[in-house]
Amino acid sequence: MGQILEAKDIFRCIAPELAALEDMIREALASPAPLIAEAGEHLVSSGGKRLRPALYLLAAKSCEGYDEQKAMPLAAAVELIHMASLVHDDVIDHAETRRGTATVNAKWGSQVAVLTGDYMFAHSYSLISKRGYTEDVGDRLAAMVQGLCAGEILQDSSLYTTELDVAEYERRIAMKTADFLAICCELGGMVGGAAPEVSRGLRAYGKAVGMAFQITDDLLDVTGDEQRLGKPAGNDIRQGVVTLPVIYALETSRDRDELRRILTNRAMADDEVARAIEIVRASDGIQRARTRVDAYIEEARRVLPEAVGGEERTAFLEAAAYIGQRDF
Amino acid sequence: MGQILEAKDIFRCIAPELAALEDMIREALASPAPLIAEAGEHLVSSGGKRLRPALYLLAAKSCEGYDEQKAMPLAAAVELIHMASLVHDDVIDHAETRRGTATVNAKWGSQVAVLTGDYMFAHSYSLISKRGYTEDVGDRLAAMVQGLCAGEILQDSSLYTTELDVAEYERRIAMKTADFLAICCELGGMVGGAAPEVSRGLRAYGKAVGMAFQITDDLLDVTGDEQRLGKPAGNDIRQGVVTLPVIYALETSRDRDELRRILTNRAMADDEVARAIEIVRASDGIQRARTRVDAYIEEARRVLPEAVGGEERTAFLEAAAYIGQRDF
Repeated sequence: MGQILEAKDIFRCIAPELAALEDMIREALASPAPLIAEAGEHLVSSGGKRLRPALYLLAAKSCEGYDEQKAMPLAAAVELIHMASLVHDDVIDHAETRRGTATVNAKWGSQVAVLTGDYMFAHSYSLISKRGYTEDVGDRLAAMVQGLCAGEILQDSSLYTTELDVAEYERRIAMKTADFLAICCELGGMVGGAAPEVSRGLRAYGKAVGMAFQITDDLLDVTGDEQRLGKPAGNDIRQGVVTLPVIYALETSRDRDELRRILTNRAMADDEVARAIEIVRASDGIQRARTRVDAYIEEARRVLPEAVGGEERTAFLEAAAYIGQRDF
Repeated sequence: MGQILEAKDIFRCIAPELAALEDMIREALASPAPLIAEAGEHLVSSGGKRLRPALYLLAAKSCEGYDEQKAMPLAAAVELIHMASLVHDDVIDHAETRRGTATVNAKWGSQVAVLTGDYMFAHSYSLISKRGYTEDVGDRLAAMVQGLCAGEILQDSSLYTTELDVAEYERRIAMKTADFLAICCELGGMVGGAAPEVSRGLRAYGKAVGMAFQITDDLLDVTGDEQRLGKPAGNDIRQGVVTLPVIYALETSRDRDELRRILTNRAMADDEVARAIEIVRASDGIQRARTRVDAYIEEARRVLPEAVGGEERTAFLEAAAYIGQRDF
């Protein structure tokens, strides 16, 4: 597929903003409670793609009314919300590491992790207070967090079942991932002063890219190897999370009964996880899921508003391509 | 001390608002995720004193610019924040019951509890969006949650140590409890359109009442019995939380060395907890802590702004007396 894109190249037109963002996040986590400050420093220095604030900033910067000083606090707020939700996810999953680094709960225990997450959520609201944003902005942020929580819980209530169909799967990943990216893009339009139909178009772009992003992530779980993933392959299968390639395999694989038996067993052994991966890989599930990714990437490019031009347009198109190309 | 006051009598002048509040909270917790909705219904029906929204509503209603429709969403927001923080506290403490009812984590597991708390925090912000509140309101709410988190973590970092002095103890309970009540009272003034000095006075009242409230709670841990408390006496001691009567006992009791040895032992046995309670009860710690409560109640009455009159003034004064009289 030609040259491999890197996130830092794609987002080069907002490089100064992304550099300033790191300082803002670091500052945001300075707290009177030393343990929150330590945990915060650990989180910031562990890095991350900063995909959400990057999409938001791209959207904002593509608008005529862009004002960096006004736009930045909300960029930090969306990243803090994302980070806080990961900290809480790691508490829930008792995860020891994330991207090869110790989690907050592993290093400081679940109390510090729960409270640091709460602190970060609250700080995201304090960042956007008194900045002259319209009331819609706070409303969108709150709705986004509520969607995230509901999506996680919905996912949890369908663990180790194979009843999930494609529509339900897509609804779940929309709540869990794509709506977040959609709202980031929309907020960029709102803060940049875009016309409502442009903000809606940006939102549609974010939604499509987000769907592609999550399906890609779910594909990696069955196609990737441990070294690349930084976690064992088949992690979703082991935790009872049924993803798109698996749903497709359950429809068409000649070994679908065996696959169903493995997936619904809460105490599945490692060799059963490996066997489930093998069945999914041998089915047309991988290919069909890739086709869905391609369709979403295509949709993202199509719905990107005409009003978005210049370097930002290039970056949005490259970002879509980047998400579509993650090698699996 | 004369007639025993009851919360429902004290707050009779805002009884309709408190009834409407129950419906608003219930509605707030209706979620697309059935588990959040169930956990929310469980929380609402488990009751609670609704002290925070009651103080907020009293403050708001005492102002000339009071508008019930405008005031109510923020009343629900502060109660949701309080409830969410309790849900997260119970996850952290692995608590099985609260006020004699099963906790969310005991009934649905820590995942549902963490996410339900996050959902409630987020909902509190969505409740106050687009209601015409000034930007200060969101800022105060966010700062309040951050203070709560920092206070909890500070408390945790001084468990099982006897280094805490009165000033540090007061700083901690201010962050954990009193600042919350202070901000509720201040927000009432702000939303009711009070002059800034009146809002500040309401805040000072809330702070003093909140300090008295938390010291009283801490006193009950060493003076109450299990039946009245709904949890074993000496719970703070067992969990390593050193409170005001204990700090005083460590200063003056002739058995202070024995007390210190017990308090710093993370694996203290039940009979050691009982012995620690005995030492504190035999010291002047109880009496000195009661004197502090009385001083704060007196302060609360003194700083209540002159501008607060009528039924609301009576209620504020009765609320202060109520907190001072809790029988210990």
